[in-house]
Amino acid sequence: MSIMTPKITRFLTQNDPATPCLIVDLDSVEQQFSTMKHHFDGASIYYAIKANPAPAILKRLNALGAFFDVASLGEIQQCLAAGISAEKLSFGHTVKNTHALREAHKLGVSLFAFDCEEELHKIARYAPNSRVFCRLTVLNTGADWPLSDKFGTTTDHAYELMLQAEQLNLKATGLSFHVGSQQTSAEAYQQAIAQASTLFQRLQSQGLALDLLNIGGGLPSHYTRSVPDIDYFSTAINQALSEHFPHQRPRIMLEPGRALVGDAGVVRSEVVLTSRRGGAPTDPRWVYLDIGRFGGLAETEGEAIRYRFRTPHDDTSHSQSPCIIAGPTCDSVDVMYEKNRMTLPDELASGDKILILATGAYVSTYCSTGFNGFAPLNEYYI
Amino acid sequence: MSIMTPKITRFLTQNDPATPCLIVDLDSVEQQFSTMKHHFDGASIYYAIKANPAPAILKRLNALGAFFDVASLGEIQQCLAAGISAEKLSFGHTVKNTHALREAHKLGVSLFAFDCEEELHKIARYAPNSRVFCRLTVLNTGADWPLSDKFGTTTDHAYELMLQAEQLNLKATGLSFHVGSQQTSAEAYQQAIAQASTLFQRLQSQGLALDLLNIGGGLPSHYTRSVPDIDYFSTAINQALSEHFPHQRPRIMLEPGRALVGDAGVVRSEVVLTSRRGGAPTDPRWVYLDIGRFGGLAETEGEAIRYRFRTPHDDTSHSQSPCIIAGPTCDSVDVMYEKNRMTLPDELASGDKILILATGAYVSTYCSTGFNGFAPLNEYYI
Repeated sequence: MSIMTPKITRFLTQNDPATPCLIVDLDSVEQQFSTMKHHFDGASIYYAIKANPAPAILKRLNALGAFFDVASLGEIQQCLAAGISAEKLSFGHTVKNTHALREAHKLGVSLFAFDCEEELHKIARYAPNSRVFCRLTVLNTGADWPLSDKFGTTTDHAYELMLQAEQLNLKATGLSFHVGSQQTSAEAYQQAIAQASTLFQRLQSQGLALDLLNIGGGLPSHYTRSVPDIDYFSTAINQALSEHFPHQRPRIMLEPGRALVGDAGVVRSEVVLTSRRGGAPTDPRWVYLDIGRFGGLAETEGEAIRYRFRTPHDDTSHSQSPCIIAGPTCDSVDVMYEKNRMTLPDELASGDKILILATGAYVSTYCSTGFNGFAPLNEYYI
Repeated sequence: MSIMTPKITRFLTQNDPATPCLIVDLDSVEQQFSTMKHHFDGASIYYAIKANPAPAILKRLNALGAFFDVASLGEIQQCLAAGISAEKLSFGHTVKNTHALREAHKLGVSLFAFDCEEELHKIARYAPNSRVFCRLTVLNTGADWPLSDKFGTTTDHAYELMLQAEQLNLKATGLSFHVGSQQTSAEAYQQAIAQASTLFQRLQSQGLALDLLNIGGGLPSHYTRSVPDIDYFSTAINQALSEHFPHQRPRIMLEPGRALVGDAGVVRSEVVLTSRRGGAPTDPRWVYLDIGRFGGLAETEGEAIRYRFRTPHDDTSHSQSPCIIAGPTCDSVDVMYEKNRMTLPDELASGDKILILATGAYVSTYCSTGFNGFAPLNEYYI
């Protein structure tokens, strides 16, 4: 998987942009979208805009026929501002405040997620007659950024809620699940599809025919650890769908975020300081960058996402050794890799420019407004 | 410790501000500053502006004679914009990029922290002839938000660095340490003062007379757990200073951030949803607020800082039970209290307005620029 596209390399050479900054190659996003369309033939691809809501990305994907998964009124407004029509939106977050619900309904959004009774009643009241889908809790085994606890409900509870939805004059349309972000195993999808299909059948026997299955997001980007290709996932998922929905396959919805934009972005950062705490050659080596957990790399929390680094000293003639990588703030939790150190060139010194690959997703928006007086990183969409 | 000041109560009643928002009572900040001045007679109080760099706070404290501890060029500019003169600033962060150092020097900042050789050389080069102090690593036992690993160095290494500073034509002025944020024990200060005093003596014997001891920040705010009063800390610290500097006490610098502004602020938030995942009465109760870890309450990471909540159902006639408290985003790590649940009224329902106390520090600046499409919280300084 090539990540440093020629376009990004050229941009860096020609513009020498100040650090820290994020550069996203829109052609990469487009290519990734086409690949996904090809592998999930007939499915509707809802881009989870939380991954990166830059207008340039929204416009490019809209022109290609994408749909959009939004988590808040703010994200709805971002989509509309990019020229996307409200019918192409799914309000996929199961926790929505009443103001957002009311406004979304007014703006023409008509597809909503839920996973509990209170939310269902809120939707019935503030967005009457909408289409709704219920989110199931499914196993997140295999995900580097699991999501299971906070959202979703049991199959039994979902069964009751879907019947209740109809009584509330909502259109009980389908089911959704999420196998966790940066998922590296297709098994989680297969199990979840099987789980959903039994509920389709139970509801069918009550006269409620669902026609939508939202298999969520979770497909991985390419960080340090190698991950399976999209082929592996699409084959397994399509097989599971054929097996568990042998007669009629419901409309399939996907919600990729990371998988569409993650690999398309590169962060450029500067080394601010290198030091051995204590001064002895045997003391641990610390490398401080001008971007850290509060400047956008929030997913390094718990060392969950391990990015790939490119430095000016990467060729094999230079010695390398493990180091701790920290962000620029004076907050001690702003340390990215300490338990599992990164192996980087010994020559690395303050002033060196480094590249952090596959940072197109979940970077720009996690950035703090200005902790320690550091401005949010600059973004370039090329 | 009264936290809901009459002024804040009145402001909420009269303005009914949209949630989430932060209201800070500037008179509380002033009172806290005066209390601290009184307890640390003769010491210079450097407000660590990272805790809350709102111009209204900077101006108020400047008028009262405060000094300011800054962590970046951005924070220096915020101080200058608030009318604070550069001589009142200490660039207390040990990790500074060269651009920031050069600009700080140009702007008239002349006091800098360091803790390693590379940084010392950077200061000598980009801010020649400045006063410098070396940060020691000290025990952070007793701190809810410890800082030990990322910053500071050993006494032996500091000894060498301070002598080297003089050779680099810098003014080796003093030593600093930080006992960790939200520190609840005075012992950490006592030990650190003893540790610093031995180094003062060793350097004195080499003809290097230091005249500054920066005892950092760390004094606690009032969250859920009761903490000792400022009396307890100031008595212990002053005793330790008299004991370990019996002949001549150096100039003492304090860097309070949280202790000056934490208790002065209140966050107003709305309950977005309450639900029992799974639907059964025995299932855990979740309470989702419109502010969470990415909307400003970042210090709930690891459930470290436990805020106090006020709800509309707090009087004793209402039943209460433990609940999990989560933020509004669709990120699963946006959960604030789960392992150690909060006991809140059972009647709590979506739409209820709640107050989160002692949120004046480390809230506004930790806030993300717009994760999930949620705008940063509004701030009111009254």
